[in-house]
Amino acid sequence: MPLSPEQQAEIDALRSDPQPTLRTVAPGMEKHLYQARQVLDHGFVRVIDYMGDDAAICQAARVSYGKGTKSVQNDEGLIRYLMRHWHSTPFEMCELKLHVKLPVFVARQWIRHRTANVNEYSARYSILDREFYIPAAEHINAQSQVNNQGRGDVLQGEEAARVLEILKADSARCYDNYETMISSDGQAGLARELARMNLPANIYTQWYWKVDLHNLFHFLRLRADSHAQYEIRVYADAICDMVADWVPAAYGAFEDYRMGAVTMSAQMVDCLRRMLRGETVTQENSGMSAREWREFEEVVS
Amino acid sequence: MPLSPEQQAEIDALRSDPQPTLRTVAPGMEKHLYQARQVLDHGFVRVIDYMGDDAAICQAARVSYGKGTKSVQNDEGLIRYLMRHWHSTPFEMCELKLHVKLPVFVARQWIRHRTANVNEYSARYSILDREFYIPAAEHINAQSQVNNQGRGDVLQGEEAARVLEILKADSARCYDNYETMISSDGQAGLARELARMNLPANIYTQWYWKVDLHNLFHFLRLRADSHAQYEIRVYADAICDMVADWVPAAYGAFEDYRMGAVTMSAQMVDCLRRMLRGETVTQENSGMSAREWREFEEVVS
Amino acid sequence: MPLSPEQQAEIDALRSDPQPTLRTVAPGMEKHLYQARQVLDHGFVRVIDYMGDDAAICQAARVSYGKGTKSVQNDEGLIRYLMRHWHSTPFEMCELKLHVKLPVFVARQWIRHRTANVNEYSARYSILDREFYIPAAEHINAQSQVNNQGRGDVLQGEEAARVLEILKADSARCYDNYETMISSDGQAGLARELARMNLPANIYTQWYWKVDLHNLFHFLRLRADSHAQYEIRVYADAICDMVADWVPAAYGAFEDYRMGAVTMSAQMVDCLRRMLRGETVTQENSGMSAREWREFEEVVS
Amino acid sequence: MPLSPEQQAEIDALRSDPQPTLRTVAPGMEKHLYQARQVLDHGFVRVIDYMGDDAAICQAARVSYGKGTKSVQNDEGLIRYLMRHWHSTPFEMCELKLHVKLPVFVARQWIRHRTANVNEYSARYSILDREFYIPAAEHINAQSQVNNQGRGDVLQGEEAARVLEILKADSARCYDNYETMISSDGQAGLARELARMNLPANIYTQWYWKVDLHNLFHFLRLRADSHAQYEIRVYADAICDMVADWVPAAYGAFEDYRMGAVTMSAQMVDCLRRMLRGETVTQENSGMSAREWREFEEVVS
Repeated sequence: MPLSPEQQAEIDALRSDPQPTLRTVAPGMEKHLYQARQVLDHGFVRVIDYMGDDAAICQAARVSYGKGTKSVQNDEGLIRYLMRHWHSTPFEMCELKLHVKLPVFVARQWIRHRTANVNEYSARYSILDREFYIPAAEHINAQSQVNNQGRGDVLQGEEAARVLEILKADSARCYDNYETMISSDGQAGLARELARMNLPANIYTQWYWKVDLHNLFHFLRLRADSHAQYEIRVYADAICDMVADWVPAAYGAFEDYRMGAVTMSAQMVDCLRRMLRGETVTQENSGMSAREWREFEEVVS
Repeated sequence: MPLSPEQQAEIDALRSDPQPTLRTVAPGMEKHLYQARQVLDHGFVRVIDYMGDDAAICQAARVSYGKGTKSVQNDEGLIRYLMRHWHSTPFEMCELKLHVKLPVFVARQWIRHRTANVNEYSARYSILDREFYIPAAEHINAQSQVNNQGRGDVLQGEEAARVLEILKADSARCYDNYETMISSDGQAGLARELARMNLPANIYTQWYWKVDLHNLFHFLRLRADSHAQYEIRVYADAICDMVADWVPAAYGAFEDYRMGAVTMSAQMVDCLRRMLRGETVTQENSGMSAREWREFEEVVS
Repeated sequence: MPLSPEQQAEIDALRSDPQPTLRTVAPGMEKHLYQARQVLDHGFVRVIDYMGDDAAICQAARVSYGKGTKSVQNDEGLIRYLMRHWHSTPFEMCELKLHVKLPVFVARQWIRHRTANVNEYSARYSILDREFYIPAAEHINAQSQVNNQGRGDVLQGEEAARVLEILKADSARCYDNYETMISSDGQAGLARELARMNLPANIYTQWYWKVDLHNLFHFLRLRADSHAQYEIRVYADAICDMVADWVPAAYGAFEDYRMGAVTMSAQMVDCLRRMLRGETVTQENSGMSAREWREFEEVVS
Repeated sequence: MPLSPEQQAEIDALRSDPQPTLRTVAPGMEKHLYQARQVLDHGFVRVIDYMGDDAAICQAARVSYGKGTKSVQNDEGLIRYLMRHWHSTPFEMCELKLHVKLPVFVARQWIRHRTANVNEYSARYSILDREFYIPAAEHINAQSQVNNQGRGDVLQGEEAARVLEILKADSARCYDNYETMISSDGQAGLARELARMNLPANIYTQWYWKVDLHNLFHFLRLRADSHAQYEIRVYADAICDMVADWVPAAYGAFEDYRMGAVTMSAQMVDCLRRMLRGETVTQENSGMSAREWREFEEVVS
């Protein structure tokens, strides 16, 4: 369990004191506020703040004086239209602030999404905790044989055991030595900004991360995708659940037009039309490479 | 008065219905929510939503589990430290959403600040209202003789009257012709996306504008500055008042370290030290150009 | 013709003086450098500088020491893979700088693309030229009846003539009055920053615009689209021609996977599969709204 | 020495083949192209491409048809004016592309500068080399006693030796185990995307990094500053040397108005004026906190 009693007490205190506001309130999101949803062995995602809801998307799209909603049905139709036709600015009018605890190698992928605001725990200034990501047995996989950038089957038996042992032992030893080096007990003590270089990439860090809904959807489309690395996908999945409660209409449109959608190239659309007219289309007469044809077949069958 | 009774009624309705929330509430900002603060003759600025407060800046800087505040005094010290040392990311953790009505030539300056989210009223889709900015007599100035990019003295007498007359007459005629062209009364009616090209730059447009506090401070530093054009400065001044109520500690630090601050070049710092040691420094022995020396003298005298 | 003899002479001088460089050179783009390609009646697009070529995309994707190319065929395959799978960062490694002259109402759409660098001619500092966009007769259309945000048929006869007359007369009168107001002949002369508000949105402005290839493709996908307003589409079309000469492999991938591609929603993919299995699918049993169904039919038929 | 003979041969090949171009050429930068400037024990910075020069800054600021230069002196004056008055967009018209090899803990600081383009070597896809940053003896410092976020004195004797030994031993062991885990010799072999988590933060990575001159100056101001961590400062210093050769006028202005400049708060300016009038000002009557007063004294004495 990633939270100490003191941390849980701080969260409980925050949740016990509702205040009146004139701003838009999203009841589905209020229930998530401050709660730590566990991800991986020591990580979590917590909603710290949010701005806007489904109606706020419509309000901005209509540039209106009041709430800008007409009816729930009308609003949902507008939101689906905006998503379908790649209107991005109304979705930017909602904002989400998260507190995330995550392994450094996951943080390094995550930070590549540049249109967001980040405050990370500083290992120059502070001492990192002894917390490392050690994968569960069912998530220790072999290198994929078909995709350089992916995993194959779950490792079995002795090999899996050896991997686990290595990860645990190296983490522990590196952290012991980190502590030894920064200790000022009987020595000067190495600067933290230097000592941290001895820590492996499965150590946990944490940050505050703030992002607008348009850019969050972009993040989720890439990171909740089946090709994303498992260790970042579980964070994206957790955030998906929260967003579905926060802006249900926008999230529904996102599922239909982004997550579950397929982009077909000019060649694919052409083949499709020929097939619907009854023509027999093969890779040879498709104008596609073998790889593209394989991707096409996955879509249509 | 820029708001119709219907618009005012919508605003009143929004202000009459407080909801409980677990999020951070900034009482100083709640009082501004939805209210239209008049700017220029037909423009306004309205706060539509906000995220965070002074404590949220500290909470993110400390990456803490709870509110992250220690004491008001501690927090203010931290905020001043962050501002003084150009830490930008904690200020990005606060967000502001405004509804602004403004002349097009002001909007064209404003939009140059790219790190913000915008939904503008569409003149492709909708018909613009007959509202034009006509300057008050005391804001009709001659071209500056010393600064190509600025104003000199207020115009007097006949010349001022002529300017006013021209602006009013051309606005009215252009709008009449805009209406004539789009009318479908006895004719097909010109497309709105084309007709709008006949409208001069003093017509009012409106938009939703969302920005984080760091980028808002950057906007305010440039646009609330005495060298900014008067017509955008009055918007920046109005926003300054709101921000001072929203995040008083951050705004105080902004005033001391940005608005009221002076950046001295390497040469200026050198001259300053020589002067404090009792040396007589003139432009000739300062290493500065005439222009830089003039700017230096303004600071130190 | 938009260029004066002096301007053409400056361009000719720039084109007459090749210099040796060790950087990547794209021969297809060298021929465009500095040339003004006319767009609309007084506008143009000119390539001022560029960085990178097709091979530079591969070099960055492979993070290699040398050119990073393997063979032209290999490179093209990689570029198509990157485009198909939404890898954006390698395309960001190419950069284009343009000088564009365009009507203000087009500039207002264009500037909404925020991830770019812009220096616009300043009407605070300088006097604008007397150049206005007056549409050719075949581009004066009625408001669309089916799409609020679009054009219908070309206007005919008297109505078209009336529109042209209005646009010309109002432009001329507004500019005459602009000149009258800023004149310092026998009067103080109104500040330029104020006088400009009298100028309608069809006046030409100009800017330097610099953008990376990924964001340029995003711009082109939206603005070279058939739903974009004609007056910005012609600029996008002109840029497409230049990009096709600059990075032919990347442009080809862009055409196949973006411009000519179709994104199908989860519902559309489902219907497609049913149709390919021989099922008769109608809007009623499709799970789509009437509007979505119409868009689907356009794709598959 | 960080480059293999093959890598050096690739670089030599690139430098042996100048091509004619009509673009702006900066001779001072041509000499750096592709050369690997060593930084730290195994790192480097290499210029891969550049766009623009000092004249290109002026050309954009003047939105001109030709080169936009008037005279070298005129241009330098304009560039200094633009820098002094915080005009950012003309500097964005120059672009630099670097290939950098750097330890992961340096990369983590560097990537916080979001307005740049990055392609990093992928440890999901490829195997990382056995190269770790091991500080030279004179750069192994104790934790600072006055600044949580900094270093104190150089470590001496046995303690320094112990630190070095730990860093070397842990790096070697972690890399040995990384190799053991991914090996497919007699076992399936762990996925690379998992195995990398065992590698400490002093391992080297590399990336292509592209940035405009305005944002590069911002990076350099923060990272070439004496308060920046030594290990990133040496990269910034290396880049400063290259930029000084590339855009000498802009770099000179940057040195005078950014690197060597001092920002004085409203209170500091007030005290300064009092001191110049002969008044004795102390912290007590200065209106500054003890910390601000200390920073003030550092500037003026």
